[in-house]
Amino acid sequence: MIVPRTLKGFRDYLPEAMIPRERLMEISRSVYRSYGFCPIDTPALEHADVLCGKGGDEADKQMFRFEDHGKRDVGMRFDLTVPLARFVAKHGNDLGMPFKRYHIATVWRGEKPQAGRYREFVQCDFDTIGTTSIASDIETALVINDLIRAIGFEKFSIRTNNRKVLNGLLEKNDLKEHSVVVLRALDKLSKIGADKVREEMMATSGASSAQVDEILKLTEIKGNNQEVLKQLEPLCAKNDLAREGFDQLRQLVDAVSAVGITDDNFQVDVSIARGLDYYTGTIFETFLDDLPSIGSVCSGGRYDNLAQLYTKQELPGIGASLGLDRLLTAMQELGMIEPTRTTADVLVAQFDADSLSEYLKIAAALRAQGIATEVFPDAKKLKAQFKYADRRGFRAVVLAGKDELTSGRLNVKWLEDGSQSEFPLSEDLEDLGQWLRQRLG
Amino acid sequence: MIVPRTLKGFRDYLPEAMIPRERLMEISRSVYRSYGFCPIDTPALEHADVLCGKGGDEADKQMFRFEDHGKRDVGMRFDLTVPLARFVAKHGNDLGMPFKRYHIATVWRGEKPQAGRYREFVQCDFDTIGTTSIASDIETALVINDLIRAIGFEKFSIRTNNRKVLNGLLEKNDLKEHSVVVLRALDKLSKIGADKVREEMMATSGASSAQVDEILKLTEIKGNNQEVLKQLEPLCAKNDLAREGFDQLRQLVDAVSAVGITDDNFQVDVSIARGLDYYTGTIFETFLDDLPSIGSVCSGGRYDNLAQLYTKQELPGIGASLGLDRLLTAMQELGMIEPTRTTADVLVAQFDADSLSEYLKIAAALRAQGIATEVFPDAKKLKAQFKYADRRGFRAVVLAGKDELTSGRLNVKWLEDGSQSEFPLSEDLEDLGQWLRQRLG
Repeated sequence: MIVPRTLKGFRDYLPEAMIPRERLMEISRSVYRSYGFCPIDTPALEHADVLCGKGGDEADKQMFRFEDHGKRDVGMRFDLTVPLARFVAKHGNDLGMPFKRYHIATVWRGEKPQAGRYREFVQCDFDTIGTTSIASDIETALVINDLIRAIGFEKFSIRTNNRKVLNGLLEKNDLKEHSVVVLRALDKLSKIGADKVREEMMATSGASSAQVDEILKLTEIKGNNQEVLKQLEPLCAKNDLAREGFDQLRQLVDAVSAVGITDDNFQVDVSIARGLDYYTGTIFETFLDDLPSIGSVCSGGRYDNLAQLYTKQELPGIGASLGLDRLLTAMQELGMIEPTRTTADVLVAQFDADSLSEYLKIAAALRAQGIATEVFPDAKKLKAQFKYADRRGFRAVVLAGKDELTSGRLNVKWLEDGSQSEFPLSEDLEDLGQWLRQRLG
Repeated sequence: MIVPRTLKGFRDYLPEAMIPRERLMEISRSVYRSYGFCPIDTPALEHADVLCGKGGDEADKQMFRFEDHGKRDVGMRFDLTVPLARFVAKHGNDLGMPFKRYHIATVWRGEKPQAGRYREFVQCDFDTIGTTSIASDIETALVINDLIRAIGFEKFSIRTNNRKVLNGLLEKNDLKEHSVVVLRALDKLSKIGADKVREEMMATSGASSAQVDEILKLTEIKGNNQEVLKQLEPLCAKNDLAREGFDQLRQLVDAVSAVGITDDNFQVDVSIARGLDYYTGTIFETFLDDLPSIGSVCSGGRYDNLAQLYTKQELPGIGASLGLDRLLTAMQELGMIEPTRTTADVLVAQFDADSLSEYLKIAAALRAQGIATEVFPDAKKLKAQFKYADRRGFRAVVLAGKDELTSGRLNVKWLEDGSQSEFPLSEDLEDLGQWLRQRLG
């Protein structure tokens, strides 16, 4: 006999885990679509050379890679950005620009399994390709806001910055060639504080105290968005790149505010840099105010040239990725997930097998009114059927024995309080349906 | 530069293909849930020994199999049934029985690519585990009916039979040991006709003409469901297994008819056997009346012991699988798919970048009324924006230049007929929203 086990770093999703996951994916799809983003899908397997070297050495090392039946060198996708680049390079002419897509799909990374890190997980990305318009940056912020709200959070902070501001300031202070190490140090501000950031910057870049001070002025900027912009503006003077970034940041802040998103949910944070090298303009991170330690639950930014490894066509774009696993963990910790192991709210008990058709008709009549309804498959003792209903998390049990069926009525037990109500057994069960819909909300 | 190509036998889904696919998957989920089936997911990769030998030699040969970073022998799942068996064996105690699950996920088979056959495809399965009750057989038929109807078909035939009837008749006629070849021949009836089936049966099983005649009596049974049952009953006499199968078939037919599904959509077909060895009772196939040549679009059946390779616990069940690719091909051929490359119906044109906030507010007000709305990201010439709207398949374009915005009004162009209507530019855009919702249906 074979031991029924899963691979290390992989996991099964039981209904209690999968029901809220599916709900999150459905909300994402519905928000993406409300802005006109379109779904696409790409293969899990690609030619290895299409994937290699695009996500850095670490990604290459972690990629599941093998030789297929036709001796081809193939790899499993480790993100959805590299396949997107390959996709737009291949289909650019058919797609038309601007092209707005979302992609919710599984990716694989053979990394060391550790708490909360898996070798298989779902990414949930959206991107707008083929335009440099600030309208897309603004829209990306609005989508993030709508996503987090639709999932059920009101207290969250979308933090934004612009890499042009950062890169302009580095340029202005002759630190351009050290941008990677300087920004990496800056990114640690909230974790290690300004003094340590200063030390690290000087040690890694060899910059003078005066140079570093100019950059660290960013960390002293405080206040609401308009105050932050006011303090940032003079720092950006006399450098074209910084000025351009500043103007974009101001346009973004003004438009987001005009559409009614307050500073509570959307904040300029001039010290965030985001690790990835390929961001070139607006960047976003999103934190849950009640659980900031979980990290950013939606991050992204603007890039200049998505598909340069596959095509000469320049494809600028902006996008972000919703962190499904982090969000689910947060919702679990904050008690936002109703524990349930059923997709139906109503269970029709089966008193005796002879009346099965009646039970099936009752269930069909409720389904026709939009109420998910299950019929217990065996005419077991009622006690066992109630135990099943409790364990699964049903809300109501329909009870109709021979007597009730004959006299044209049925009872419903509301499991939360054990109360019982009687209804006429009509063809379409409108009374019962109305009562249930009201109670189920 | 790397050529942006996909692997042989794999495919990208562009929006025009993915939008109807997602719709089909959503319909399936919603029908499954309305009966209380719950979603699960399992890893794409499993220990090779968990997958090997479960789908037959052919499946083993086609499996994508390799050594992972930890020198483990791993394989990519080639169906969702083997992972389900492993899953219930592993989690049986946590799941509780009966257990009703659906699983919509990608599987991989390294088979020879040919027209309409891919190495990567999505399966869409539902199963009820842990009960032998005929109620589950009936429910499976009802789910298939609801699925095909919800997708948009009215003319379809769910065909059913019971392997116990077939196996009982074989037993009765001393052909039990030749059941595989006899049933394989019988399965070809609709393709090659009764004479050839007869020839093949005699050649492969060595049966006598008299023995084969007894089996072929099945092929002479004709009429509506009640007539078929009437003709079948005497054939099943004097064999317990056949009799048991017959009784189940009758219960199934009576209940399905009681719930209002007519013989037009549900038919006993005593000659279908379905290839797979592991079916042991009720079996189903589903054909589209307008396109029977495409084959069964939803098939399944009852099995006695799902997980015998992984656990001593006996787990009977019944399930079926919806053929997404076949259904999409059929819908395409029958003109049931509106060609569209947008998920939004309304495009807000951008006249000038200064008024962007106004356009964003218009879009937000429409979204708040449930109307998916996109804002064109650049203030390009209107001609280019209309071209984009046409190409993508938008239904309406909102037009609001500086003059209109100043005087508090906007225009909507309905693309189908080019007509234009004016609306007041109120905060919540209720008038416009109501008009659009009515037109969009």
